[in-house]
Amino acid sequence: MEGNGTERNLLLKLAFDGSDYHGWQVQKNARTVQEALQQALEKVFGARPDIKGCSRTDAGVHANDYACNFRTGSAISCRSVIRALNANLPDDIAVKSCREVAPAFHARYSCVGKEYIYKIVNRDVRDPFLNRYAFFYPYSLDLPLMNRAAKGFLGSHDYVSFRSVGAKDGNTVRCVTHAALTVEDGMVVYRVRADGFLYNMVRIMVGTLIAVARGQIDPDSIASIIEGRSRKLAGPTAPAHGLYLNHVFYEPGLFETE
Amino acid sequence: MEGNGTERNLLLKLAFDGSDYHGWQVQKNARTVQEALQQALEKVFGARPDIKGCSRTDAGVHANDYACNFRTGSAISCRSVIRALNANLPDDIAVKSCREVAPAFHARYSCVGKEYIYKIVNRDVRDPFLNRYAFFYPYSLDLPLMNRAAKGFLGSHDYVSFRSVGAKDGNTVRCVTHAALTVEDGMVVYRVRADGFLYNMVRIMVGTLIAVARGQIDPDSIASIIEGRSRKLAGPTAPAHGLYLNHVFYEPGLFETE
Repeated sequence: MEGNGTERNLLLKLAFDGSDYHGWQVQKNARTVQEALQQALEKVFGARPDIKGCSRTDAGVHANDYACNFRTGSAISCRSVIRALNANLPDDIAVKSCREVAPAFHARYSCVGKEYIYKIVNRDVRDPFLNRYAFFYPYSLDLPLMNRAAKGFLGSHDYVSFRSVGAKDGNTVRCVTHAALTVEDGMVVYRVRADGFLYNMVRIMVGTLIAVARGQIDPDSIASIIEGRSRKLAGPTAPAHGLYLNHVFYEPGLFETE
Repeated sequence: MEGNGTERNLLLKLAFDGSDYHGWQVQKNARTVQEALQQALEKVFGARPDIKGCSRTDAGVHANDYACNFRTGSAISCRSVIRALNANLPDDIAVKSCREVAPAFHARYSCVGKEYIYKIVNRDVRDPFLNRYAFFYPYSLDLPLMNRAAKGFLGSHDYVSFRSVGAKDGNTVRCVTHAALTVEDGMVVYRVRADGFLYNMVRIMVGTLIAVARGQIDPDSIASIIEGRSRKLAGPTAPAHGLYLNHVFYEPGLFETE
């Protein structure tokens, strides 16, 4: 499509079922969400814009609200972008919204916080419809005990104990503003908000909270696990398929109005 | 496992995600739910019992409550049957319950009624998590108008107009006791109960109700479509993946107590 001479910066919000993807970021010989979106953008715009994603996600991880942006000279309306992309994307990715944002907006660097949820099916018999969408854990979970532990995550801490070995973040301090388990739609849901997350941080938090329920980790020991600054002190990494990037936060005045 | 000399008749209730199955019934060169259950039973009981299913289901159709029964000389407890079968079944099939029933109980012939539900995602943008579990229909649906039409299904009628061509039921009269659309969990759900259903009957009902919403079929014409006794008078067959066998009814006094 022909441009109108003015380059626009467009923010897309996506939902995707990550089951059949090797995460967001383009990689060789693997199907990724970014690659699928690039192909759809190429069909709609006739060129492959450089897409900035709000974060990498792991294979199998889902998103209810993934943000990415790209620049285009095309004058196509946001409404038409949504319709055209959804017509060209695989069924397991959907563009929920599109809006023009300030030229300086960058889905990753402008992000001021994220919310993840982790879904656990906690009953005797599995639910065949949730195999891809929640972690099936048939043993007892003491939610008040786990929530006592989860309070230990609140505040600014060096989260290196909750980062998979091999990751290379420079600054490992993150500020967690919400961390609690509730029951929603018959599932146990862990909801956590922070200014950012280290690699596998949410899944290690969940594995640690389950270890608390199993009596393997003391509910009052989260502070000392954090202080110990060692991945070995925390619990195992919970499986990817229970995890959802649920919301991405931007400063409303500067870049985005909802 | 060793039997105790007394043959028992066991009723299993299953839930299954039918996406990856060619329906219930064993067929050559196709993966079916019955075949998967037979394999699990063979692992648990050391033999392949003859399983009686409550109905055939089409490829892609789901079940929240599928009934089947088989006879065994094994003394294994119902609780252990559930646990052992679930450990040996694929993740997209779950045994929800097991109980001993009267010797004469037959999952198909003893059945006095069934309830199906059909799920429709009726919004502008698809939900990537519901691709396999509901029919995505992005155009306007007038539920009061469709429900006016659905009332025409109530009562005993010869349903040959709502049966796929090629099916060979003898008696095509069925008594429909409930047929209505509601909104549940953000989806449009068609719920229908009858003493039995002809081949593709629910999916043709749904296709007809959507044709009513599209203005292609008069909402007050259901009676004349039924009277016309011709498949051509009804609407198209809605896709399989929105359909769920939701409940199977048996006479409580005789065979089963819930």
